Amino acid sequence: MALIVQKYGGTSVGSVERILAVAEKVKSWHDRGNQVVVVVSAMSGETNRLIELARQIDPDPSPREMDVLLSTGEQVTIALLAMALHRLGVDARSYTGGQVHIRTDSAHSKARIMDIDGTRVRADLEAGRVVVVAGFQGVDENGAITTLGRGGSDTTAVAMAAALKADECQIYTDVDGVYTTDPRVEPKARRLERITFEEMLEMASSGSKVLQIRSVEFAGKYNVPLRVLSSFEEGEGTLITLDEEDDVEQAKISGIAFSRDEAKLTIRGVPDHPGVAYQILGPIGEANIEVDMIVQNIGKDGTTDFTFTVHRNDLPRALEILKKTADELGAREVESDDKIVKIALVGVGMRSHAGIASTMFKALADEQINIQMISTSEIKVSVIVDEKYLELAVRTLHDAFGLDAEN
Amino acid sequence: MALIVQKYGGTSVGSVERILAVAEKVKSWHDRGNQVVVVVSAMSGETNRLIELARQIDPDPSPREMDVLLSTGEQVTIALLAMALHRLGVDARSYTGGQVHIRTDSAHSKARIMDIDGTRVRADLEAGRVVVVAGFQGVDENGAITTLGRGGSDTTAVAMAAALKADECQIYTDVDGVYTTDPRVEPKARRLERITFEEMLEMASSGSKVLQIRSVEFAGKYNVPLRVLSSFEEGEGTLITLDEEDDVEQAKISGIAFSRDEAKLTIRGVPDHPGVAYQILGPIGEANIEVDMIVQNIGKDGTTDFTFTVHRNDLPRALEILKKTADELGAREVESDDKIVKIALVGVGMRSHAGIASTMFKALADEQINIQMISTSEIKVSVIVDEKYLELAVRTLHDAFGLDAEN
Repeated sequence: MALIVQKYGGTSVGSVERILAVAEKVKSWHDRGNQVVVVVSAMSGETNRLIELARQIDPDPSPREMDVLLSTGEQVTIALLAMALHRLGVDARSYTGGQVHIRTDSAHSKARIMDIDGTRVRADLEAGRVVVVAGFQGVDENGAITTLGRGGSDTTAVAMAAALKADECQIYTDVDGVYTTDPRVEPKARRLERITFEEMLEMASSGSKVLQIRSVEFAGKYNVPLRVLSSFEEGEGTLITLDEEDDVEQAKISGIAFSRDEAKLTIRGVPDHPGVAYQILGPIGEANIEVDMIVQNIGKDGTTDFTFTVHRNDLPRALEILKKTADELGAREVESDDKIVKIALVGVGMRSHAGIASTMFKALADEQINIQMISTSEIKVSVIVDEKYLELAVRTLHDAFGLDAEN
Repeated sequence: MALIVQKYGGTSVGSVERILAVAEKVKSWHDRGNQVVVVVSAMSGETNRLIELARQIDPDPSPREMDVLLSTGEQVTIALLAMALHRLGVDARSYTGGQVHIRTDSAHSKARIMDIDGTRVRADLEAGRVVVVAGFQGVDENGAITTLGRGGSDTTAVAMAAALKADECQIYTDVDGVYTTDPRVEPKARRLERITFEEMLEMASSGSKVLQIRSVEFAGKYNVPLRVLSSFEEGEGTLITLDEEDDVEQAKISGIAFSRDEAKLTIRGVPDHPGVAYQILGPIGEANIEVDMIVQNIGKDGTTDFTFTVHRNDLPRALEILKKTADELGAREVESDDKIVKIALVGVGMRSHAGIASTMFKALADEQINIQMISTSEIKVSVIVDEKYLELAVRTLHDAFGLDAEN
């Protein structure tokens, strides 16, 4: 008998029929003798309906009241799912975030979970009940309703699993696991049976949208085994765990992530003196624009060239700021390019295997794909290339690292 | 400066435009220096939408989960109204029933309020804020969400007013007050400036649908001055208060209520022995059918005739039960009639004025209206007449007691 926390997102509970299907799935886990806690999101479309209502009242509504409004979405789902379980003869009880004491800070619309009191949930589980909990929401120390922001239901599930010391946290989604890369780009992409938290984080931050970064961080921090599965198909999904040496797959590389949402800015001929990086990036950060990759080249005549990437949506604002900085610094020129993509090779095997980066560069060179920027971390190598090469580059690397073979 | 609790029902907050209009009304009271607590219902249509969702999952859903579901309706309204107030520059905070500790018993879907902790509301009012509270809902001692049943928002408002010792509880509705009778039947009907709790209760129980009976009982018990006003028009409405001798209107009669939802059953030739009333009405009560008027006539040869009224919807079931009873008691026959109406004359003036009933009977007799049953209480005389006489009887009595005159 295991204690399992399951999370079903908005698409999985998007209609009465789907809620009934989720209830069947929950029942099958419960029937096999498991204790089951289910965390659910709002039915798909509901959150947008509520946002639209608020927008008609006030284009810039109070975050506190927005949370009161949006938290009703999950509350509708928990009640309906509990009813669906009852109809199948499963004893179940639903709870809002506040009712199971999911305590957060007071940062409305992007609150962080501080603490969960699992007492009530444990009592229900001991009594043989399935517990249905509203995702995405909590209460602050004053009892005000808070929400965790987009994707927050994953975090609720992981936090609940950590608080209950669950054996596994299962995230049900519309894909059946984590793949070596996006199967829409490389049809030979293979589902991974296991991946480490670190790899999953690097995959997520490089564009793989299977899981929210915060929930993976949380799972890693509290060592909650996390499994990604399909709501609609049977299967084992992908298990995300700590890196256990003897257990990790032999592959050096787990996957290839990529992101189309990139844009590149270059400032040329900047006087090369200490603090210039701060002078260039400081104003960008102050405008709340996140900078991803940064490369500084040594120039000539005491000047330097400086290149960085931002989210494509932020390019116009970043460019405007950078032009102002260029004037102030007496830089020669500013360039930008939003026809680029980022491709990242991720794998804990890199730590112990040399030559990964050079294999990557050679494979791309053999296909005449020019690398514009390179950035490396302990378990990741990222490159920026022209967006027209995206599919070719992903398939080339997938093949070069033998990811489509069963290994 | 007064402390006022206002309640707006589903129609008053049925759209974004109407919520904005309610916010304007609240603001005008707040601007005049009053402390204002606003209790709101779900937007009209929302409760039915949620019930339909539940029905698709399970035709007989758990009352506990139904309350979790339905309570979201008011929660949406409180958030939107608080946003609307912010937009008008009014500081406001919304609270669910649970957040302001509206403690109820655990009778899901028809819970009764046990206690309200006004501490948080008072603190907000002291800070100059308008407080917006979800009507119709509370929490039981285990923190489970409960609802008070249809019309429960009126009760929330009155209970909140009692807990805060408010100067007035204002119920905004789609009529501009309590009338001497239904203006659709008697165009000369006049809005009452004042009416006592007792009279209002008798009016409500005799078919006047302006206020829920429970909220009037509650207001009377805690002596909360209650005012019925229009959401859509300006005006003083009708104030419902204790009977204060020197203050009561001169009229003997305050109003004429009526109900079309009546049906009459008669059992003839029942052996007249002690306990026969119980033998007849016991099985009816056990079937959860409410009996209103009861008349027993002395018959002949040691038998008696027994007549009572029930809600028209309950007639088929009541008739079935009564026929069985008739067989058991050896009664002669059973008759029923659902083409009847009840008309009730209500007024605290009856206590000190003789002859009210005879004036009523004479006025009806002059119009050849036959009275089928009569029932009296301290401040009410009710009669049952053929339904075809409803309009004529109401207008006749309205005129006979001078209700259309300004007095």
